[in-house]
Amino acid sequence: MSPKSIRAVCARSAKQSVVCRPLTRLSSSEASPSPRVIFSGIQPTGVPHLGNYLGAMQQWVKLQNEASANTSLIYSVVDLHAITVYQDPNALRTSKREMLAALLAVGLDPQKCTIFYQSDVPAHSELMWILSCSASMGYLSRMTQWKSKLDLDENANPLDSSTKTKLKLGLFSYPVLQAADILIHRATHVPVGHDQSQHLEFARECAAGFNHLAGDKLLVQPETLLSPAKRVMALDKPTNKMSKSALNPKSRILITDSSSTISKKLRVALTDSIEGVTYDPSSRPGVSNLIEIAFNLDGSNHGAASPAEYAKDFEGLSLKALKNKVAEVVDDHLMPIRSKFEEIIGGDGKILQEAAQIGAEKARKSAESTMQLVRHAVGF
Amino acid sequence: MSPKSIRAVCARSAKQSVVCRPLTRLSSSEASPSPRVIFSGIQPTGVPHLGNYLGAMQQWVKLQNEASANTSLIYSVVDLHAITVYQDPNALRTSKREMLAALLAVGLDPQKCTIFYQSDVPAHSELMWILSCSASMGYLSRMTQWKSKLDLDENANPLDSSTKTKLKLGLFSYPVLQAADILIHRATHVPVGHDQSQHLEFARECAAGFNHLAGDKLLVQPETLLSPAKRVMALDKPTNKMSKSALNPKSRILITDSSSTISKKLRVALTDSIEGVTYDPSSRPGVSNLIEIAFNLDGSNHGAASPAEYAKDFEGLSLKALKNKVAEVVDDHLMPIRSKFEEIIGGDGKILQEAAQIGAEKARKSAESTMQLVRHAVGF
Repeated sequence: MSPKSIRAVCARSAKQSVVCRPLTRLSSSEASPSPRVIFSGIQPTGVPHLGNYLGAMQQWVKLQNEASANTSLIYSVVDLHAITVYQDPNALRTSKREMLAALLAVGLDPQKCTIFYQSDVPAHSELMWILSCSASMGYLSRMTQWKSKLDLDENANPLDSSTKTKLKLGLFSYPVLQAADILIHRATHVPVGHDQSQHLEFARECAAGFNHLAGDKLLVQPETLLSPAKRVMALDKPTNKMSKSALNPKSRILITDSSSTISKKLRVALTDSIEGVTYDPSSRPGVSNLIEIAFNLDGSNHGAASPAEYAKDFEGLSLKALKNKVAEVVDDHLMPIRSKFEEIIGGDGKILQEAAQIGAEKARKSAESTMQLVRHAVGF
Repeated sequence: MSPKSIRAVCARSAKQSVVCRPLTRLSSSEASPSPRVIFSGIQPTGVPHLGNYLGAMQQWVKLQNEASANTSLIYSVVDLHAITVYQDPNALRTSKREMLAALLAVGLDPQKCTIFYQSDVPAHSELMWILSCSASMGYLSRMTQWKSKLDLDENANPLDSSTKTKLKLGLFSYPVLQAADILIHRATHVPVGHDQSQHLEFARECAAGFNHLAGDKLLVQPETLLSPAKRVMALDKPTNKMSKSALNPKSRILITDSSSTISKKLRVALTDSIEGVTYDPSSRPGVSNLIEIAFNLDGSNHGAASPAEYAKDFEGLSLKALKNKVAEVVDDHLMPIRSKFEEIIGGDGKILQEAAQIGAEKARKSAESTMQLVRHAVGF
């Protein structure tokens, strides 16, 4: 991320009153005096697509590989959040396994990080309850997530006659569980996308409210950890985000897709009829999306500092040749990931089981140390 | 409880569509083919008064002493519920200890029952979260508890401009935690007062909703366990319930009050200026309250089947003499309780600590066996 884009994103965040801190500050090259705890969660949506990978997982691996000795990394597969909308139990079980396998396949190491299923740590729900006793209904009703999940406009009221039968308490109170996820591990930094910054601000409010009642700085108010905003767009509709829930499977590339599937999906990706390759997201969203994907996955990067610079190398290519080039870069990058994924998921399940167990134990320990303080502060 | 009063209460309950079952059915004298689990909770309000004792605790002891071999009794000091309104932490800690000591002092045996602090079992919060994912906001907004706690009228909306800043999520979602308390132990019967029957009906709805989604009869729909409605009224205002929160300490008798304190409080109890003793709650609430208290605490009971019959023995007494008689009965009943209470609370704390530990272990085991089924059913 260039200093300029960091500043740009910080400026945007400042308006939302979220404290920001560029990702690079956390590299081991810079000695950091106070210990850091970075928490992030990912939904158990099954095998991730490139949007998940570039939006979160790749950054998680980078954080792991660049972390200094006094940085703890805590990554959760947030299955308690997944059930705020109905999930088929068997499908959820499979999706959880696939997501955990993917996290290991992309290079996360259960020894270096804490990687765990949220539902393996009941203390998350316990802290959620405690926080909910001081969380205002008014504040929660202004949050946007439940409105967007139910396709409601932003002025919707949770108790409108048309809403109140559809809206479940879990979806409405979801930000409090998310706050508990972060606060229970005393996270100092949370990498968030812009659609989540409202929730992080809420978590900060929860911490401040609890500390005010407890008369202590017991809970840590987390800071936003900004990362390059890598929004990967759908291959068939490059103005929409790449999404698991889109009906067309050719709209997304899964990180386990074979070489031929990758090629096929890219071959039919929507571009335009302009000759040559240029990077221009607003007028050429399809082409620019392909360039960004390749830019972010190309190990060599041709020394380019930005997608626009990277695109210069392909100026003379036809769009068909560009697609071939992108397919090659994507396949090169994903090849080791998919083979590791197959190894993990195809075996007797022991690798996953062991990883989940190690993660659960570490996460429970981390949560318990906070909960002991919280329980005492509350009067339990 | 006479068959007549059982029928009367059942008829009232039927309108509220709560299944009812008279308390006497559970006595060991009647062989019951299927195992029963009885759950009940009590707020950690410190040393209980006669209202708490006659309204719940005395019944709990009776259930313990009359339970057949296949009946489990699970009693919880519900500290997670207590924090839905602000609690001073040190005061809460003391109140919890006092309540547990009182439960032991009145005769509950940690070996025969499961007696535990709710906050010692995080699985209660865990199930609460899971149930909240299918609990409708509309249903919860119709519940009365949050309205009465905030002194709002029964048509109040949780998001009225005057309400939404005061109303916290914990208080609003309290019935879901209460449902989890009951369902997590697979309770078949719950002794409830009439002000709680709405919550038990909600717990039944939660169980039915979960079972519908899980495609199984996994959670047990609890039945109401009716008990003689022993409402003890305030000594200074016999039209109000005896209450911990009333400003006048002479409005209530604590189960640890000394002989002289009991006499003093009864001496100033509000009665009336009618000569002689008669039982007539509507026109003589003060006198009738004293008669009921004595009737329920008098070990011999003079063979009387009802307070009205019991009152006949005192017909010729002056109200002063009646108060002396009631003081004597109350003191006789409470003497062994207060001496046991002092023994438990005055020691090095080991008795309480051990009881809490035994209870927590038993309750965790009971909760965990349900949670294993629930987690699987959900897809975790």
